Amino acid sequence: MTKVAKPLILVTNDDGVTAPGIRCLIRIMNSLGDVVVVAPDSPQSGMGHAITIHDTLRCEPSQQDAGPQTEYACSGTPVDCVKLAVHEILDRTPDLIVSGINHGSNASVNVIYSGTMSAAVEGAMQKVPSIGFSLLDYSWEADFTAAEPFIKQIAESVLAKGLPAGVCLNVNIPKANGTPYAGVKVCRQTMGHWEEDFDRRLDPTGKPYYWMRGHFVDSDGGDDSDIWALNHHYLSVVPIQFDLTAHHSLAAVHGVLGV
Amino acid sequence: MTKVAKPLILVTNDDGVTAPGIRCLIRIMNSLGDVVVVAPDSPQSGMGHAITIHDTLRCEPSQQDAGPQTEYACSGTPVDCVKLAVHEILDRTPDLIVSGINHGSNASVNVIYSGTMSAAVEGAMQKVPSIGFSLLDYSWEADFTAAEPFIKQIAESVLAKGLPAGVCLNVNIPKANGTPYAGVKVCRQTMGHWEEDFDRRLDPTGKPYYWMRGHFVDSDGGDDSDIWALNHHYLSVVPIQFDLTAHHSLAAVHGVLGV
Repeated sequence: MTKVAKPLILVTNDDGVTAPGIRCLIRIMNSLGDVVVVAPDSPQSGMGHAITIHDTLRCEPSQQDAGPQTEYACSGTPVDCVKLAVHEILDRTPDLIVSGINHGSNASVNVIYSGTMSAAVEGAMQKVPSIGFSLLDYSWEADFTAAEPFIKQIAESVLAKGLPAGVCLNVNIPKANGTPYAGVKVCRQTMGHWEEDFDRRLDPTGKPYYWMRGHFVDSDGGDDSDIWALNHHYLSVVPIQFDLTAHHSLAAVHGVLGV
Repeated sequence: MTKVAKPLILVTNDDGVTAPGIRCLIRIMNSLGDVVVVAPDSPQSGMGHAITIHDTLRCEPSQQDAGPQTEYACSGTPVDCVKLAVHEILDRTPDLIVSGINHGSNASVNVIYSGTMSAAVEGAMQKVPSIGFSLLDYSWEADFTAAEPFIKQIAESVLAKGLPAGVCLNVNIPKANGTPYAGVKVCRQTMGHWEEDFDRRLDPTGKPYYWMRGHFVDSDGGDDSDIWALNHHYLSVVPIQFDLTAHHSLAAVHGVLGV
């Protein structure tokens, strides 16, 4: 009887290895394959695609529960975790990289600032099918129960069929509200931006400092956009690429520069 | 006689306010408009699109030379600098945001890890024409002389004609080698990736730590790619967008997920 090798699944996140979101994601992935966790040892939200090039990295075995997954806690960013896992920790290329479940939205332009999604983008750059999951609930007590079967199904589909080259998935999940999710909707990134509003305060010596605050402005509204889907209680799935070339504007830029 | 207002130009970078690259960029911009510098007070290379959300920001007046520009040194990342400048420091929206001159390449996928380019992308998100400049020379003694007239001309063109909505420019400049540059070439981002090779060492107590190293693998070679242009002594200009949706793969992802 041939023993069929189980898929190797790398799990990471940006909220750190102890966050409830990654603990839930690990439990789901344990039902799909052999799981190795390489995740930050402290929260790394808002780190975007940051990497550690002027400092050393630590990566230590870590045990958060009874397993069966293998875990490491890493001193670096989510992207550092993926690079270190793929090139140093794992003995073969993983079949799937999943990141999250993030506590908070990575829809629309939030994808750009997101450590969760940068880990998935890095996975795609390493030619591994990769998915970032985020729940629109910042609370540490967020309820992932209703999301679990959808997360499992999306991961199973990607394990079975792969993803187009150079593409990873940005999956956002509405906050649980007691009604069943409407389903899964493949979308494009909503056009929008953050309007910052800095909170200027004075320290005890009278010098100013700032807290960044802001609110998101949706300048889109299209029913094929991810925020529309989330507002209608769908899980949104946006295929994300790391070729940032604005191919459609090459001619216009020739015109601007006169070359 | 009407006084014609000079354009307002915001200058930032990721190597920090004292780096020779930004000092050169400030000198060039002083010839084109009123310049305000809001740049990191320490090096921020590899910070990608990181933002500071769990900590406070400092932003202090700074004087590095005789001017005439106004300068601030900020405790945050390049993206923090742009947000803080646009929403708190400047009294009107700038006409142009320039970032750099980075000491080192931001061609191909380096754009994703680059603090220099993330500042330019953030500028585009704030609807300001924005350009990131990088010289393929890591040395602090890099020679920017041959690049200066090209940088001035590109900035002048963008000030005069603007840029397509949602697009900024990634300008890379070959290392000076004594021969004149071949010109300016509008390109697409080269397909390629970094192969990491972690240098594992033991600390004095016997515990492992890692330095990230790596080499870039060009899997493209097309004569419309930015690395081809740089190898042929052209300045490369890639229009960069922040809509990361892989529009061409929407149908394939529908197929993968069966939705």
